[in-house]
Amino acid sequence: MDVIADIAATLIAQFQKPTLAFLMGGMLLAALGSKLEVPAPIYKFIVLLLLLKVGLGAGISVRSADAVSLAIPALCAVAVGVLIVVFGGKILSMWQGISRSDAMATAGLFGAVSASTLAAGMAMLDAEGIYYEGFIGALYPFMDVAALVTAIFLARMSEARADAVNIQGGTATLSSGDGFSGGGFSGGSGFDFGMAKGIITDTMKSPAISALLLGIGIGLLARPEAIYESFYEPLFRGLLSILMLIMGMEAWSRLSELKKVAHAYLIYALAAPILHGLLGFGFGMIAHHLTGFSAGGVVLLALMAASSSDISGPPTMRAALPEANPSAYIGASTGLGTPVAILSIPMFIALADWLIGF
Amino acid sequence: MDVIADIAATLIAQFQKPTLAFLMGGMLLAALGSKLEVPAPIYKFIVLLLLLKVGLGAGISVRSADAVSLAIPALCAVAVGVLIVVFGGKILSMWQGISRSDAMATAGLFGAVSASTLAAGMAMLDAEGIYYEGFIGALYPFMDVAALVTAIFLARMSEARADAVNIQGGTATLSSGDGFSGGGFSGGSGFDFGMAKGIITDTMKSPAISALLLGIGIGLLARPEAIYESFYEPLFRGLLSILMLIMGMEAWSRLSELKKVAHAYLIYALAAPILHGLLGFGFGMIAHHLTGFSAGGVVLLALMAASSSDISGPPTMRAALPEANPSAYIGASTGLGTPVAILSIPMFIALADWLIGF
Amino acid sequence: MDVIADIAATLIAQFQKPTLAFLMGGMLLAALGSKLEVPAPIYKFIVLLLLLKVGLGAGISVRSADAVSLAIPALCAVAVGVLIVVFGGKILSMWQGISRSDAMATAGLFGAVSASTLAAGMAMLDAEGIYYEGFIGALYPFMDVAALVTAIFLARMSEARADAVNIQGGTATLSSGDGFSGGGFSGGSGFDFGMAKGIITDTMKSPAISALLLGIGIGLLARPEAIYESFYEPLFRGLLSILMLIMGMEAWSRLSELKKVAHAYLIYALAAPILHGLLGFGFGMIAHHLTGFSAGGVVLLALMAASSSDISGPPTMRAALPEANPSAYIGASTGLGTPVAILSIPMFIALADWLIGF
Repeated sequence: MDVIADIAATLIAQFQKPTLAFLMGGMLLAALGSKLEVPAPIYKFIVLLLLLKVGLGAGISVRSADAVSLAIPALCAVAVGVLIVVFGGKILSMWQGISRSDAMATAGLFGAVSASTLAAGMAMLDAEGIYYEGFIGALYPFMDVAALVTAIFLARMSEARADAVNIQGGTATLSSGDGFSGGGFSGGSGFDFGMAKGIITDTMKSPAISALLLGIGIGLLARPEAIYESFYEPLFRGLLSILMLIMGMEAWSRLSELKKVAHAYLIYALAAPILHGLLGFGFGMIAHHLTGFSAGGVVLLALMAASSSDISGPPTMRAALPEANPSAYIGASTGLGTPVAILSIPMFIALADWLIGF
Repeated sequence: MDVIADIAATLIAQFQKPTLAFLMGGMLLAALGSKLEVPAPIYKFIVLLLLLKVGLGAGISVRSADAVSLAIPALCAVAVGVLIVVFGGKILSMWQGISRSDAMATAGLFGAVSASTLAAGMAMLDAEGIYYEGFIGALYPFMDVAALVTAIFLARMSEARADAVNIQGGTATLSSGDGFSGGGFSGGSGFDFGMAKGIITDTMKSPAISALLLGIGIGLLARPEAIYESFYEPLFRGLLSILMLIMGMEAWSRLSELKKVAHAYLIYALAAPILHGLLGFGFGMIAHHLTGFSAGGVVLLALMAASSSDISGPPTMRAALPEANPSAYIGASTGLGTPVAILSIPMFIALADWLIGF
Repeated sequence: MDVIADIAATLIAQFQKPTLAFLMGGMLLAALGSKLEVPAPIYKFIVLLLLLKVGLGAGISVRSADAVSLAIPALCAVAVGVLIVVFGGKILSMWQGISRSDAMATAGLFGAVSASTLAAGMAMLDAEGIYYEGFIGALYPFMDVAALVTAIFLARMSEARADAVNIQGGTATLSSGDGFSGGGFSGGSGFDFGMAKGIITDTMKSPAISALLLGIGIGLLARPEAIYESFYEPLFRGLLSILMLIMGMEAWSRLSELKKVAHAYLIYALAAPILHGLLGFGFGMIAHHLTGFSAGGVVLLALMAASSSDISGPPTMRAALPEANPSAYIGASTGLGTPVAILSIPMFIALADWLIGF
């Protein structure tokens, strides 16, 4: 009983933190029909600062980290990204009325990472004074790219298989040819390296990943400590409140799109963040036992797994899988997945406190 | 004579404060034909931060304030908002060539509150180290909503009366029906609660009021103290200088619209901020004697009364009174009313220092 | 050898400074085809803050500076601005395929000053703890206006001479008449005060110069020290990193335009910043010996000379010399001149350290 009381107390205290308060405030404003709007350029600028901040912090920390403590969590991040997509795609495809490409696009977004959600988690750990490895931000692209590549690759493979069947049946369809396929499809079985390389290159060029990689690169090679501490760090903690407000309003407005699509998305979007988070938590525990990965680090790995991509993922999916329905995958991820993930941060903190202790 | 010298010295010192310097600088730039522009998204963002800052500060303070010290100034704010509109509407309607709806729209804007003007006053008191109640920001919606509702309500009532006369005379006109009227008009006399409720709901949903209420709510229910002190407070003091620059340029460009309309607006816009400010000052003195309302609080109540709405008011008026001429009411309020109100801040400070003492 | 080793060490240390790292990072991102974009309103806002910051700092310092220490560097700035344009225009005109107006527009931009480049230099000196006169920002308009006026004036004079020849030869062309010419052309020889006044007035009204002059004015007449130190100074150091990122990306994308025009621009754009910088450095040394102008001041005067206008210059040129080819002059200045100037800052610092010592 004490454990439950402890967890309940932690939860209540966390919901009074400005991060969650602004998220719920944004949802409430949108629900009440407020005409408040944050201009799009401001949103983009806040996200850019956030990504640079996370990247710079990671780059600075990677400089002094040893290879093993870095490699194990990075491998865990890749594994989590791939597993979420493979299982998510299978489960969603089993539902009636959900096409293979819709399933893969949705699972891909839920496997990919939200920088805003990750930053919200960092801010909440910072506010509690809970330690986490500085290089955590560097894990982001591992999970993110792994998930997006897996999703697009699997969708293409099943498409190629379907095409092969169609060709045998006498009705050939045109290859979609949107610039991703480095080489031709390699037959219908086996891994197509040309396609995978094309998807990875394209993902790296997306605004979010390239801003993050830029931050990591500058943190690694230059000496941005002074600017990081005097500008990025303090400014970001404040701007995050505005970002949460925007995400709350955005989530509410996207939620209505979910009404247009199958109920399966609703169930998936509610359950997936928790289940994925627990999967990430499990892998984080493995890294904890192998390399002494911190309890704070485990929380953030779980949160990356729980989060679904809201910046780089949607445009990547739209370009790579034009046949998928954006109302379904964006509605599910931004409308429900993201707020559920952010609201579950206190749970992961409580869990890590209970299992490892801060 | 000493008093006059004192007041003069205070005035000169105040005009060297960056707040007024940037306002006058903006007017000068616009007057000289500078092509300097501040992008609209930046303006909206600064205003959003300002409203959240004022709201958060108010919410945090309301938590520890006692009911009576809060209720008396709030009642004063409502009274001032209503009185300004009732008298202003009467006076403006008496002028030739000013329609009833133009009169009410203009009086409504002058009764409503400008967050920027209020923030400028707060910044100037802060710079002087003059104390004021933290909950002042929470008085804003009381005066603002009271004024807007009164103006729209009186305009509709006189319209309904005119319609009634027309119907009797045989020429029926269509009810404007723009979503505000919760129920039908209640005859031509008596208070229409449905309509009042509609106007209040709509005003609450305006970007300015909903941002302010969000800030108050989060300040009241969550614990945003850390973010308020490390982000909203310090950032705002600086961004206010940019806001004053924008307002100065905007005022000058709106001023030219006043040339198109009756001279009455010019006279009203010059005199109203001073007279309304003195009315607010008087009510503030009552609160001072009843509840010990501070001298700084009296200055800010006077300033709220002196200010005219530049964010939420104009679009509300445009939606509610589409027949009123925006050149008249926006030219009068943004073009002249706002700069006169801001430039009169030193006068209210000097007056409070003389009558109460800081 | 020691000198070379010292300079090399200084250079390496400087390239690890965030200012240069973000510039090169931006160029790299653009070169790799990243889709990262910083919204235009954000860019404009950062530039506005930068110009106000430079202006305020200059205005505050001018208040306590004596006339001679101010006048000598100001005269040097004017001389450098005029000389760069006169020589640059002559050299570029000698190349085949470069029209007289293209030559003057390009030389004019290279003579004018880039606020971003100047701010980058200030940030790098600040980071090193190297002293420079606070009034340096006030030298900006002297060099900038001198260069733009000289360029436009010389282009018009040669046009007038060509027209005179054409008229004598029987084919009159219409005067371009775009509002700059205060009076008629004064014949083809001698100085046209009306035209010069028109160009100066128009340059003063440009967004960059008017923001800078506003800052200087407020710094001079009001007391903005508190806001300068708590807001403009600290915020700017961070926002400069974003500005350098934008400039790096912009430079790369403009570079491609240089392919469309004569090779001469490429050679000029690579050599001019260094040669102009050395010219500015020379004049700075004169001021150093005459008035004790600091070593940091000499670096910044050299940098102003090395920089080419990226904010106010291009639109001024487009309006004043519509017959000039923007691909040529913007490609040369923004695409190559600006990054070369910024990347040469460490060289000027090393040179000043060697010749004067900090």
